[in-house]
Order: sequence, then structure tokens, then C-alpha cells
Amino acid sequence: MSREVDVAIIGAGSAGLFALSQVRKQTDSFVLIDGGELGTTCARVGCMPSKALIQVAEDFHRRKVFEREGIEGADSLKVDVPEAMEHVQDLRDTFVDRTLGATDHLDEAHLLESYARFTSNDTLEVDGEEIRAKKIIIATGTTPIVPAAWQDVAENVITTDEFFELEDLPATMAVIGLGSIGLEIGQALSRLGVDVTGMDQLETVAKLADPVVGDLAVDAISKEFPLWLGAMAELEPHDEGVKVTCGDKSVVVEKVLASLGRRPNLDQLGLENVSIELDERGIPVYDPHTMQVGDSSIFIAGDVNADRALLHEAGHEGRVAGYNTVHDITAFKRKTPLGITFCEPSIATVGEQLDELNDAEIAIGEIQFGPVGRALIMAKNRGVLRVYANKADGRLRGAAMACVKAENLAHLLAWSIQQGLSVQDLLKMPFYHPVIEEALQAALYDALGKLDVSEEVVELEKL
Amino acid sequence: MSREVDVAIIGAGSAGLFALSQVRKQTDSFVLIDGGELGTTCARVGCMPSKALIQVAEDFHRRKVFEREGIEGADSLKVDVPEAMEHVQDLRDTFVDRTLGATDHLDEAHLLESYARFTSNDTLEVDGEEIRAKKIIIATGTTPIVPAAWQDVAENVITTDEFFELEDLPATMAVIGLGSIGLEIGQALSRLGVDVTGMDQLETVAKLADPVVGDLAVDAISKEFPLWLGAMAELEPHDEGVKVTCGDKSVVVEKVLASLGRRPNLDQLGLENVSIELDERGIPVYDPHTMQVGDSSIFIAGDVNADRALLHEAGHEGRVAGYNTVHDITAFKRKTPLGITFCEPSIATVGEQLDELNDAEIAIGEIQFGPVGRALIMAKNRGVLRVYANKADGRLRGAAMACVKAENLAHLLAWSIQQGLSVQDLLKMPFYHPVIEEALQAALYDALGKLDVSEEVVELEKL
Repeated sequence: MSREVDVAIIGAGSAGLFALSQVRKQTDSFVLIDGGELGTTCARVGCMPSKALIQVAEDFHRRKVFEREGIEGADSLKVDVPEAMEHVQDLRDTFVDRTLGATDHLDEAHLLESYARFTSNDTLEVDGEEIRAKKIIIATGTTPIVPAAWQDVAENVITTDEFFELEDLPATMAVIGLGSIGLEIGQALSRLGVDVTGMDQLETVAKLADPVVGDLAVDAISKEFPLWLGAMAELEPHDEGVKVTCGDKSVVVEKVLASLGRRPNLDQLGLENVSIELDERGIPVYDPHTMQVGDSSIFIAGDVNADRALLHEAGHEGRVAGYNTVHDITAFKRKTPLGITFCEPSIATVGEQLDELNDAEIAIGEIQFGPVGRALIMAKNRGVLRVYANKADGRLRGAAMACVKAENLAHLLAWSIQQGLSVQDLLKMPFYHPVIEEALQAALYDALGKLDVSEEVVELEKL
Repeated sequence: MSREVDVAIIGAGSAGLFALSQVRKQTDSFVLIDGGELGTTCARVGCMPSKALIQVAEDFHRRKVFEREGIEGADSLKVDVPEAMEHVQDLRDTFVDRTLGATDHLDEAHLLESYARFTSNDTLEVDGEEIRAKKIIIATGTTPIVPAAWQDVAENVITTDEFFELEDLPATMAVIGLGSIGLEIGQALSRLGVDVTGMDQLETVAKLADPVVGDLAVDAISKEFPLWLGAMAELEPHDEGVKVTCGDKSVVVEKVLASLGRRPNLDQLGLENVSIELDERGIPVYDPHTMQVGDSSIFIAGDVNADRALLHEAGHEGRVAGYNTVHDITAFKRKTPLGITFCEPSIATVGEQLDELNDAEIAIGEIQFGPVGRALIMAKNRGVLRVYANKADGRLRGAAMACVKAENLAHLLAWSIQQGLSVQDLLKMPFYHPVIEEALQAALYDALGKLDVSEEVVELEKL
């Protein structure tokens, strides 16, 4: 049995679905192939359920400001954890159902719910059937990393793929890996009453390259639960669960959350039958502006390429890959990098980071949130925002922050950077009062004072 | 006794202080004159204490989602109103102290704590002293409006100038005037347990010109407390306080909050001794790009000119007026209009509004927040956002919204409009996931479908 199509898309996650939307504009000759559970990483086990959990934890945590505000009775508040988890799962199911809508209407000829394996550059084997495709998009996503050395304690290790299925939470937990997901879940669990210890082999969290922002984030978050940084965690079986050792510290916990990142789903794809170049990690070498793998008819989009594993980037890459399977290959600009960790203080990085910039060329504008009016009113004034601009002309290059409303400030900054705007340009914009955006304004003023340019009244623009 | 100065600034509020900052760069020959309480309307009785009150009310109101989230004990929460008001006043005092810092260092020769009265175009009388000034800036601010007809019930009427001095709150209250301040305080009081009735002679709130946004706002807010719209409120004395009649409805309340707006402080200035043109309201006719009154040596900045009575606009106008007193008169661009009401759902207007736009030229993009993922997670998914763009080319002209995080979305939109960006430009920007900015993205897509332009993949930009 065999058939021919214009385009085969392997993976019906976010990247695959965005690719499909482009492909369908031009041809009905396609197959979408997915052997796993449908519904996208984002909706099933990623962005969405984590935000629901964080929201509950944040609402419960907020009771700590009640006394200062004249609200009595905070001590009577309790979390019914199974109820809270059920609420999270209900919301998760709503979001998963929506993503399923994207494939619902595909008939059996277009949606193959099975696994694909390359047999050559332009043929796939799916359930014994040979599919010959003019263009193929790899969008197979990722799987949580669990070190082989953890085999002995496997039953006490939970990955983020499994976490949101829990009906109750353990009393004690080690969260190993303090990237976005680890920090988010770790803080939320701590706020919901789990005795959490966070660990990471790096000396910072959320991969922050800015030491001022990193130190503030570590300091603020470790007031809620301990962060053990700078050493690889080692696990050994223990009567009461798992003994976790990290540097010279150790703790016995019921469960370990493995939040060490995710590895590309490439090993079952039969890439050994394809003539493309792989990098040292085994990932096909591709052009990030076209998503094309070498000069082959294969494209790779979404988390599986191990670059910018974020929903909106998966969407962008899927769209580019999909477009390029049905048009002449076209190179597109990448979006300004934007990363957000939804903890408190929330963390965001925008554009280029300090480890990518030349210190001597850059002016850093900084604002500590202590006195920022609106943040003080919100009782969320522990934070810092730093903007990086060219000393010579004030053009914004990047920013990093750990502060309230980082997600919103980061959008303002990302959009500004993508347009090539300068510190001086932004200071001409309206900043309302009293809003958190005024903290950005203050950081921009701080940067302005360090630039090699001067304007008489930077805030005003001649008519 | 008399003296001569380069610049006299009448009023040490926000506009006056921003003017001063420009003047001082060029000359030490100035006087700042203020006979009232120092500390700015914003910090004493406006933006800042209202936000503190709103924050307490919002935190208390949030208990209503606790049950759905699995948090038990919400019924045990109570507000100790005097404690809450003291908290608001403590914060208010902090902010007032800061603004006082702006005049602290001025000696008696530069800061005259008294009232000024024009005796001619370039002379003022202050405490019997004649001050001759090459340039004079009027920045005298405003006073709450209380209709003369309310004289009989004066002791039951509170203005926003007095409200934040209250040590306790009345049990029942009518809030008359549902602009920003009335809506904000009305909703906060209702949430803190006051039995509030809101009234406005307009058929909408927050002066919304967009009927879809207006209707949603009225609908959502009136689920918390009744809004009586479309009739002038009439007050009469009553044994238990005041009887307020609005159209065919009436209510007896302990107190009435007069939030009918503020009138310019011009009547004591001796403007009859000055040869300048006044408009039909008695306000000096001035150029909004220079702040100059006619071709005189007088400038007018801040709330007193009855246009854009907002802190950031007072700052802008003060800066322009100050600059123009010590330089050749220069015309500066105005900022994109931006107005925010900090109620829930929060309300914002940006750029041009429907009553200023030509229906036939405009495409309206709309998003209802019901299904917006993050809003649903926050349980704040009652909202609507509408963007107005030129049908012909997609350029954004304005927006109105009543939704969660309006203040943040409004900044993104205001900055974009000020730069002349189009719907198509914005769709190329990064929108993270899951964030409220995705609702703006959806509104932009809705607008895109209504434009007379088409692009193959609007989200992608060729390299």
C-alpha cells in the first residue's frame, strides 16, 4: 500500500497545526501524522495547566497582605488540594478540547493517528503504509528528560507530563531544575502547602544571565522555599521516599519533580535513513529563517529543533515551515526573543541578554521597584528591571527583569526592540499614572543618563 | 514692595512642578506661588489614594473565586473599615511626602506660600507684594464641582477632596457622577460593604463613546451595585440623610459622593485685569502645542485648562509651558490620548474614539473575553476590546475596552498609535502565551478581516 502527497506533517502539536494552516491554503494533498495523545504540549502539560495552578496558589498566597490592608480572617483560609487540582484539571480539559477542534474535522485520509518513520528523504512508513511526500515537516515535539541514573527511584519521580494528572499533592517534594517550569510549579506547590526544595546545577534561576536580576529573583523566591543552587542533584532510594543530595545539603522527600528540560522526539523517526546533516546533539541542521533542513525537502519546526521552545515561537516556525512547503523557499525575520516565567516576582527576558552583548557598547538602565508607587500599593514592590541600550545612539538591545507584571512590560519592550526604537523614542510615549509602566520609564531615564547622546528635552517632540 | 523675575509659576501641583524643572535649567530668577495645601491633587486626593482603596477592595472581592479554586474559608473574611482607611491614608501620606520633596529645598525667595492675583498681563500681587514677571504660568488646578442646588444637604455631601480623610465609611451612599473617579470609588466602596447606588446623567459610564464597550461595562459593574443612568440626580433633605431622586427612582442615603468633575481654579486670579481672550467657559484660549495663551506672555498648564486632566498630561503640559517660558516659543506634538479607569473590568480609551471617527472609513476589530485562555484562568473573562483602524490601509486610529488588564493593553496600543503602526504591523510582533495580550491579537485579526488590504501571511516579515 502506498500513496503520494504534496506535504506530510509529522506531529499534530502547535507547530504542526500552524504549519497545516498554511499548507491547506494551497493544497488538499497532505497528511498530518501523530501517534501520541492529541492536544498539544502547551494545553495538556505546559503553559495552560501550569497557569491555572499558579493562579490558585497566587490567590491563596495573597492572604498574607490582608492584615496590612485591614482584611481580617486570613488565618481561616485553607486549600483543599484535591479540589484545587480538580479545578486545574477542569480548566486543562477545556483548553485541550479546543486544540482537538483543530483536527476534529480531518478525515482518515488526512489525519493518521500513528507513528511515522523515514525510509528515505521523501518517504515515510506509517503503519506499514508507504507515504511518498514532496515535502515533509518534522514537528514531533519533546519528552521530559529523566536522567538514567534516576532509574532506582523511578516510582518517586514525576515529570511535568505526569504532574497535572495528580489528584493530590505529596507533603514533601524536591523540584530539580529551576528553569521556567520548575520555578513556576515549585513556587505554586510551596504556596499550596507542599514542603518544597528547589535545586539547580546553575547558580541562577530561569537561566538569567543578568546577575542583578538573577540575584533578586533568587533572593525573593528563596524567602518562600529553599533554593539549592550550583550543584547537580543526586537521588538515592530511602525508606520514606527519596534522599536527594545537592552539593553538601540533602533532604528526604516523598516525590521528585523532574523539570530538567525536554529532549527532542527524534530517536524513533528513522533519521538514519535520511541524508541530512545532524548537529552534535543529533538535531537536523536547519535555517531558522526558512525552517528548511539543509537544502533537502525536509523542514523542522517547534520544540523538536531545541531552539526557542515556546508556544508563540512554535507557531511562528510552523507557519514558516508550512508556507515554505507550498511556496518558493522564502526567508523570514525572527521575532524579538521573549521569555517569561510566571512566578512572583515574575521574570522576563527580552531581546539580547548580557551574555550576548558587549559590555563596553551598552548602557544599562536600572530601576529597583521598592519606591514604585503602584507596586507599593499592590504590595509587590520587590523587583528590578534592567534595560540594555547602545551607548552610542540609545537603541534598545534587550532587557531582563524580575518584578510585578513582567509579562506586560516585556511585551512593550519586545515590540519596541523589534521596531528598532531607542531609549529617547520610548521616553516620548505616554506613561499613565499610577501604573507599573512608570517603572520602565524610570529605568529608561536611568539609561538615558548613561548614553553618549544628549537631547534638550527628550520627552518632547517638535511638531 | 516689588520685585522682578523671569518666570512666575502660579500653582505648585504636578503641572507647576514639571514647568519648574524646565525653568530651573535656564534661570534662577523665578517664583513658585501656591497658597493651598502643597502635595498635588494626584497624591493627596486623586490617583494615588484611590488606587490604594481599590487595591484593598479588589483583594477582598477576590474571595468570591476562592470556592471554585478549592480555597475554603472565604466567608470568614471581614473588612475592618477604619483599619482599611488608615492603610489607605498611610500610603497617601507616603506619596504626598514625596511630592513635597519637590519644593522642600526652595527658599522663601523662590517659594511663596500664598495666593497670586494678576494686576496686569505681567504683574502679580502676592500678599501685598508686586511681582513683575517676564513670563507667567497659570497652573492652579481644579476644585470639585458641587451644584449650588445641593446647598440644603451640604453636610451630607462629600467631595473627592474630602473623601480620603474619612475614618470610617457610611452604610449607604449615592455616588453621583460616574466618570473615572466616581466609578472607581463607587465600586471600591460597594466591595467594602457600603450600600452604593451610582448615578450619572449620561447613559454610559467613564464617558465611553463606544456602545459595545459601554454596555458591557455598565452590565458588568451593575451586577455589583445599581447604576442609575440617563437622568440628573436631585437631592433633598431627609430624616435619615439625603433623599436622592434620579429619573423615576429614588433612594435615601447617609452620604452623597459628588464626583461630577472639577472646575478650573481661575475665579480668584484677577483675570479681569489681564488682556487675554477667554472661551465661553471663562478659560483662557491657548495653543495646546505651546501652552501659550494667545500671543501673550502667559501660559496655562495642567488641569486648570480643562483639557486632559490627567497626571501625565499635566506633566507634559507643564514641561512644554516651562520650556517655552525660557526658550523661543516652540510647538510640540501632543501624546496619543490615553485614559484609564481602574475599576473591574478596567476601562481604557486610546487615541481617537468612535464619536471622533468617520464610521465609513473605519474597520472595528472586536474580541469578547469569554474564551480568552488566561482571562478564563484568572476568572476575569468578562470583557471586550475594540480596535479602530483605517479600512484603507489598516493604520490604527484608536481603541476602547472594558476588560482585565486594560491599563497594560492600552499602553501597547497608545505607543503603537503614536508611531503610526497598522493592524498588519502589530500582527508581526511577538505575542507570548498565555497572556492577556493575546486578546489584543484576536481583536487585530478580527479587524484584519475587515480591511481593504490583503497580505499573504500577515504575521511574517520577509528577511
